[in-house]
Amino acid sequence: LCQPDMLNVHLVPHTHDDVGWLKTVDQYFYGDRNDIQHAGVQYILDSVVDQLLKNPDRRFIYVETAFFYRWWRQQSSSMQQTVKQLVNEGRLEFVNGGWCMSDEATTHYSAVIDQMTMGLRFLNETFGPCGRPRVAWHIDPFGHAREHASMFAQMGYDGFFFGRLDYQDRARRMMYREQELLWRASDSLTPPMADLFTGILPNGYNPPEGFCWDQSCDDAPIRDDPDLEDYNVDDVVKRFLAIAEGQVRNTYTNHIIMTMGSDFQYENANLWYKNLDKLIHYVNAQQANGIKVNVLYSTPSCYLQELHRTNLTWALKNDDFFPYADDAHDFWTGYFTSRPALKRYERISNSNLQVMCNQLEVLGGPVSRRGPFGVGDSKTMKEAMAVAQHHDAVSGTEKQHVANDYARRLANGWQHCQVLVSNSLAGLSGSTAERIYCDNLNISVCPLTESSKKFSVNVYNPLARPVTWPVRLPVNGTAYVVSDANGKSVDSQVSFCVSRGFAVNELVFQVQAPPLGYTTYSVSLLQNGPPPASTQHHTPTAIKNKVLNHMTFDPDTGLLSSLSNLETKQTIKLTQNFYWYNASDGNNVESIQPSGAYIFRPNSSTPFVISKTAKTESIQTPAVQEVRQWFSPWVSQVVRLYADSRALELEWTVGPVPIDDDLGKEVITRLDTSIQTAQYFYTDSNGREVLQRKTDFRPTWNLKQSEPIAGNYYPINSRAFIKDDDDQLTVVTDRSQGGGSINNGSLEIMLHRRLLYDDVRGVAEPLNETSGIFPKGLVVRGRLLLSLDRPASAADAHRPLAQEVVLQPLLTFTGGDLHPNTRLEFSGLQAALPPAVHLLTLSQWDKDSVLLRLEHQFQSWESKVNSQPVTVNLQKLFTTLDVLGVSELNLSANQWKDEMKRFSWTPESGTAHLHLSVPSLQHIRT
Amino acid sequence: LCQPDMLNVHLVPHTHDDVGWLKTVDQYFYGDRNDIQHAGVQYILDSVVDQLLKNPDRRFIYVETAFFYRWWRQQSSSMQQTVKQLVNEGRLEFVNGGWCMSDEATTHYSAVIDQMTMGLRFLNETFGPCGRPRVAWHIDPFGHAREHASMFAQMGYDGFFFGRLDYQDRARRMMYREQELLWRASDSLTPPMADLFTGILPNGYNPPEGFCWDQSCDDAPIRDDPDLEDYNVDDVVKRFLAIAEGQVRNTYTNHIIMTMGSDFQYENANLWYKNLDKLIHYVNAQQANGIKVNVLYSTPSCYLQELHRTNLTWALKNDDFFPYADDAHDFWTGYFTSRPALKRYERISNSNLQVMCNQLEVLGGPVSRRGPFGVGDSKTMKEAMAVAQHHDAVSGTEKQHVANDYARRLANGWQHCQVLVSNSLAGLSGSTAERIYCDNLNISVCPLTESSKKFSVNVYNPLARPVTWPVRLPVNGTAYVVSDANGKSVDSQVSFCVSRGFAVNELVFQVQAPPLGYTTYSVSLLQNGPPPASTQHHTPTAIKNKVLNHMTFDPDTGLLSSLSNLETKQTIKLTQNFYWYNASDGNNVESIQPSGAYIFRPNSSTPFVISKTAKTESIQTPAVQEVRQWFSPWVSQVVRLYADSRALELEWTVGPVPIDDDLGKEVITRLDTSIQTAQYFYTDSNGREVLQRKTDFRPTWNLKQSEPIAGNYYPINSRAFIKDDDDQLTVVTDRSQGGGSINNGSLEIMLHRRLLYDDVRGVAEPLNETSGIFPKGLVVRGRLLLSLDRPASAADAHRPLAQEVVLQPLLTFTGGDLHPNTRLEFSGLQAALPPAVHLLTLSQWDKDSVLLRLEHQFQSWESKVNSQPVTVNLQKLFTTLDVLGVSELNLSANQWKDEMKRFSWTPESGTAHLHLSVPSLQHIRT
Repeated sequence: LCQPDMLNVHLVPHTHDDVGWLKTVDQYFYGDRNDIQHAGVQYILDSVVDQLLKNPDRRFIYVETAFFYRWWRQQSSSMQQTVKQLVNEGRLEFVNGGWCMSDEATTHYSAVIDQMTMGLRFLNETFGPCGRPRVAWHIDPFGHAREHASMFAQMGYDGFFFGRLDYQDRARRMMYREQELLWRASDSLTPPMADLFTGILPNGYNPPEGFCWDQSCDDAPIRDDPDLEDYNVDDVVKRFLAIAEGQVRNTYTNHIIMTMGSDFQYENANLWYKNLDKLIHYVNAQQANGIKVNVLYSTPSCYLQELHRTNLTWALKNDDFFPYADDAHDFWTGYFTSRPALKRYERISNSNLQVMCNQLEVLGGPVSRRGPFGVGDSKTMKEAMAVAQHHDAVSGTEKQHVANDYARRLANGWQHCQVLVSNSLAGLSGSTAERIYCDNLNISVCPLTESSKKFSVNVYNPLARPVTWPVRLPVNGTAYVVSDANGKSVDSQVSFCVSRGFAVNELVFQVQAPPLGYTTYSVSLLQNGPPPASTQHHTPTAIKNKVLNHMTFDPDTGLLSSLSNLETKQTIKLTQNFYWYNASDGNNVESIQPSGAYIFRPNSSTPFVISKTAKTESIQTPAVQEVRQWFSPWVSQVVRLYADSRALELEWTVGPVPIDDDLGKEVITRLDTSIQTAQYFYTDSNGREVLQRKTDFRPTWNLKQSEPIAGNYYPINSRAFIKDDDDQLTVVTDRSQGGGSINNGSLEIMLHRRLLYDDVRGVAEPLNETSGIFPKGLVVRGRLLLSLDRPASAADAHRPLAQEVVLQPLLTFTGGDLHPNTRLEFSGLQAALPPAVHLLTLSQWDKDSVLLRLEHQFQSWESKVNSQPVTVNLQKLFTTLDVLGVSELNLSANQWKDEMKRFSWTPESGTAHLHLSVPSLQHIRT
Repeated sequence: LCQPDMLNVHLVPHTHDDVGWLKTVDQYFYGDRNDIQHAGVQYILDSVVDQLLKNPDRRFIYVETAFFYRWWRQQSSSMQQTVKQLVNEGRLEFVNGGWCMSDEATTHYSAVIDQMTMGLRFLNETFGPCGRPRVAWHIDPFGHAREHASMFAQMGYDGFFFGRLDYQDRARRMMYREQELLWRASDSLTPPMADLFTGILPNGYNPPEGFCWDQSCDDAPIRDDPDLEDYNVDDVVKRFLAIAEGQVRNTYTNHIIMTMGSDFQYENANLWYKNLDKLIHYVNAQQANGIKVNVLYSTPSCYLQELHRTNLTWALKNDDFFPYADDAHDFWTGYFTSRPALKRYERISNSNLQVMCNQLEVLGGPVSRRGPFGVGDSKTMKEAMAVAQHHDAVSGTEKQHVANDYARRLANGWQHCQVLVSNSLAGLSGSTAERIYCDNLNISVCPLTESSKKFSVNVYNPLARPVTWPVRLPVNGTAYVVSDANGKSVDSQVSFCVSRGFAVNELVFQVQAPPLGYTTYSVSLLQNGPPPASTQHHTPTAIKNKVLNHMTFDPDTGLLSSLSNLETKQTIKLTQNFYWYNASDGNNVESIQPSGAYIFRPNSSTPFVISKTAKTESIQTPAVQEVRQWFSPWVSQVVRLYADSRALELEWTVGPVPIDDDLGKEVITRLDTSIQTAQYFYTDSNGREVLQRKTDFRPTWNLKQSEPIAGNYYPINSRAFIKDDDDQLTVVTDRSQGGGSINNGSLEIMLHRRLLYDDVRGVAEPLNETSGIFPKGLVVRGRLLLSLDRPASAADAHRPLAQEVVLQPLLTFTGGDLHPNTRLEFSGLQAALPPAVHLLTLSQWDKDSVLLRLEHQFQSWESKVNSQPVTVNLQKLFTTLDVLGVSELNLSANQWKDEMKRFSWTPESGTAHLHLSVPSLQHIRT
């Protein structure tokens, strides 16, 4: 219990269990491959429960539901009862409680909400209200996103604790006692809707020095038997009081918190608890000597409650905690881009999860789960995606074999979802014809389209608006007839294609699909042979489409030279090229830090250009205009403009990055424009709200910049833009990447990294990706979508554009003719939703209910039209679902909205701090 | 439960807890200094008890009472009740049960019996008969002494298991299925009195490969959740059955044993048991498929019982298991000598324990423990001695800081005993005058004798016979009057002395003390100044005394040249000199094994002579004749013959061994004689029975010798001899040393070792002893006593001679005049015991009883006179103790002799083996 007139030291026993990192999630669970890292979560939970039972004062918090769920299923019902009792008594407390502790820089909000929902739902259903975490707990992620704080607030958390922040920021906050603060995490939501009390933990998430009693530590145990050698109680008490005294100097109340645990600790919880019992006993025994220090077993929520009781005011913060540096040359900005292929696979898997599993399971009804194509489930995919949100998963900071495991799990999830989709579409279309999935269209492989004279394509659109979408299919014919659902012929084009399969040509046509529904196109071979010679091998000077865009190329270099929006009559100068930074190898006077999976550290601020000129050729067809650029054997690009598109597509291909010269390379593309940026640029937070950035500047402290490139990189989850009064150039990405604006008018995005050294943050591997099909190094392909607009209306373009990249149409194929009774078109919505409203989630919740999330996707300031409030009539929303009732939940769906009561916190007014007098420790005799 | 028609696999969960090695015993207990080695016995016992309670099938054995006792005292009474229950139900079983698992090569039987008695007594008093170990368990000691086996038999053990034996011996025993055998451990005791069933464990004491589930191991856990990745039950079962099949090929019954544990394992017992539970479950589940394998939790006593039930006959063995080699160039014969100063300190501490604590506590009565000089106790010394018997203690194979800890504990024990002695002697003498202890007489330091004009010396003799003993005291006077208890003047001599203190002279006189009693000499200064010039600086040619000995020196070399026994009219040629072997540094084609704390490996079989000649001077006095020899700045010797002595004393001083040449050195002295040894020589086993040795030969297998020196070294605990039909030269040592007889007529003894490399057996330090007072390297001094006799009667001389070295008189001092009423002489015995009978133990057992051990100290064959049976009348033994009753106990005093019922085992007759048909494993499908 806390003592009001004493310094209360809250000891928080905890373990930090990575959902994959050096080992796979299941290896961690079982304690397999302990040769890589000693860690076995099954034993941690076994041991902690045993030890909690030995002393009712003891407390433990558990965080990662991915592990807890695995363990729970293996327990006997009597053990489950025991654990429920511990939870009910507050001795075992869940904090955070998502499936994993997600990464904050490279995750998309949609997937984060899903993984949190899954973890919290398990806790809710298993333990009821006592199992609901009150506190968010991101002790390890390498920088903190404002959107995460906003989500946590909307999920009902009373507070948030984390461990890592910029070392300069921490120093300032320690000095001003601002390690506990109020984070206002949205500029659009009305306070306190997105306000989140935030505490920065004093030792990262480790115990204070000398007080680590895990089996993985070497600190001296408390030796309190006077008959044995080395009695050390007096020494331990003295050291502990000195640490408490040091800590209280940087805090604001008479409560301090100490995290007693670390990575995969408590596998043998007896070591910790036996010594903590003694510590508490012997320190509190000093109260009899007038020492006003009270040590207690505690939890973050207990600590938070005590802070809340103080009724103090707290420093307010509006920006975020990126980038994270733990020393002058140690910026954790490399992982924004690390493992670009995995990052893309994760993003497209999220699209697949929403489309294939969630939406089509709902729209298809029960037959989706058990139908003509067998038993499908969404659980496998949901778990794989939830696991992939972990801060060493999509972040790219895991070992190679673990990255492979994440990808394998996602692929396995796809398989399970495809059964659902086949069942669902069979129900909706009335056709049980076999449905073919072409998962390898990204490398132009699809056996069906390559070999069939006739097939149909079902295009399912997951957005709540109709979309137009270019379909590109590998084929071997020269000409095809493509017809839409009404039998009307559609423009199509066949061009030469470099495939990894057997296709020699590529068939391209635009499809239009209804909101939350599908349409069907049929394709018939007209003529075999090579494609017509539509390719122009001379250097192109410009491409354009009829509606909006126009861009020119420099005839000398083959590079882009300008971009125009014909509608708004804007034109900017725009040069785009590819460069690489030479990754530091650590042999450096200033610092021995090399670039690695986490850390970006170029050894010079000037990147090397890959080629000053590009070889080009262009293809001009009614459907699409392309300029193909070759910069080197390992860098090429297709600049592409579809007939109806508002955006210019840059499809880049990078790799294998050469390392014959023994130099690690970090490959960027840079857009140099005539826009007057004055050091400002803008990046999104987790794909949602956009934050302003400024080169060599941090909003909350006086930055001493020590890495002019890496220290100016920020995560780009879905978009970045630069602007001045007249022009805004927005780049929408297809995955998370890092980038910055180093020079006026410039925006650079890091695309790929191949490194030769480990960066000494634990992963113990250089980020040097090769694989069976890429033995000489990974080749990565991706797309950047460029949109030039007036700043005031740019969001009206980039918001829907980015959603189309995040949730892309699903193509499924059927060979031959369809049965005449097949329903070729379907929409789940009665009408398209207004442009401001995004249908974020439509997912089966239980047998009789679905989870629906509708989102206002515009920030309050970004669009005159679309930032306004919108009303949606749920009764008239769906075509096939009868709305029998609606109950509003919090964002994570683990609490009724009207029952969500959070602590209220008062931000300080002005700059003066109303500091509580610091509890006196003068009585401590040491 | 065992299945008669199946192969029964006995899994024995165990931990091997060194009572000091890389860490001190208390560091191991608490888990302190885990940076050196992760090990914490307190947690092991916590954890094992918890886990035993979870499943009644589980078993555990515990071995080292030094640790169990520490743990037990810290437990609550309810935990003690729980543990008692586990012991009563056989779930926790004690094996071995001594205070430690003693070393077998360098320990003296007297100290081994004491440490076993102390451990077993604790178990007996705490747990009763269920706590009595049935099995001796020496899984780690580096070679096995026959005397240990004899003691274990006499302590009532039903069997004995160990892990280490010569690799050639193991190979042969595996082939002939003789890893289980009957050891006839005495050539004097009537079988089966010293017969001991002995089992050699199949994997040392480790689990089979791939089946180590401790936190310290990396083997794959059993992953039996089909919903997670990497399900491996089929693989585990298959691998386990293959191992069992391999093991049964080398055994004799349908039972095999697997040690499931290792050094300091089971700190987190859940890991082991959780996986063992699964292993047993899944393997036994294969019985349903016809696999006739039954896996069970077991203990060594359970396994032994099953072997006993087979009623088979077993191979008989009469020799011992020395030396131990684990590969061709890896003979563990260095530790016979390692840390010679510690070995001597341990030996003299044993003498002090017997004299100061045990005997004088009994003779002085209750006043000893609480008397005029305060509270004394014998417990501290007993525990320190018991701990020092550990196989990494007196063996010299511990880290330096641990060696220091052992020595410090012994020194602390001395302090506690000295209070007992002061109280006891005050009671016996009637004088409470302060009693001064001069613990540093070995370096000629004693402030009292150096500075006093008058003092008295109390000489206590612990033997049951009167002794004559030379007393050497550091003084600063030139002449003294020495008087005995009757006031009669005694011959004394003052000579020049090199002291580490302030003394310039040394006073020497012979004392005679009564059996088990004391006498008192008074010493008064006659004259100050330097000593008379009795020293002859010319080269001596011979020294002799009036009774027995005569030895000559070579005038050219200064070395000994002959030795005679005037009484028996024997003379042999005898040259003695000092040499060093160059320790292998591991840079060798044949093997990379260096010499180290354990291993002796000279890089050449020819030792380097330290000097072919010695500088000499001699001192001839009525009391003593000396020749002082200087061989080099770091090797010198005093050849000394006291007036009444039957033995020639060689007092050697070696050190600091120079290492400026970067060569490790193993220093020996070698006696080259005219005795025709024909490869035979003789060494004692733990200071008791003597075994015959033969160069390049082992009695039980056809030795392939690969190390001509190290492979012929044997432990010498108290004596070694060489002989032919006429002459026997016996060397009595003052500590354990290694030695051998490489050439005809030769006997060498290793005195000191200074090495520059670790020998890769875990200690991870080179054996390179330095200390505060010896910063340039340890200087060691010791004595060899040479006795030349006829073989038939040699034991009549060396048995009492060796006992006088083992139990030496205790000198205590009183300054000034004694009170006239002081009792100057006392004997605890009514009469001296017969020469064959040694009073081994006289020790207070509890308030009303004492423990007495009388020992026949002659082997059956070694003396016509003294090997005969002897009768002692206990009623007429003591002068001060009334014998109210006598109850005979086993050797370890934990069982009444008449209740001691051991398993009987039948040795095989002849050489033919009656092998049981091997249980069929053909049904195992793998």
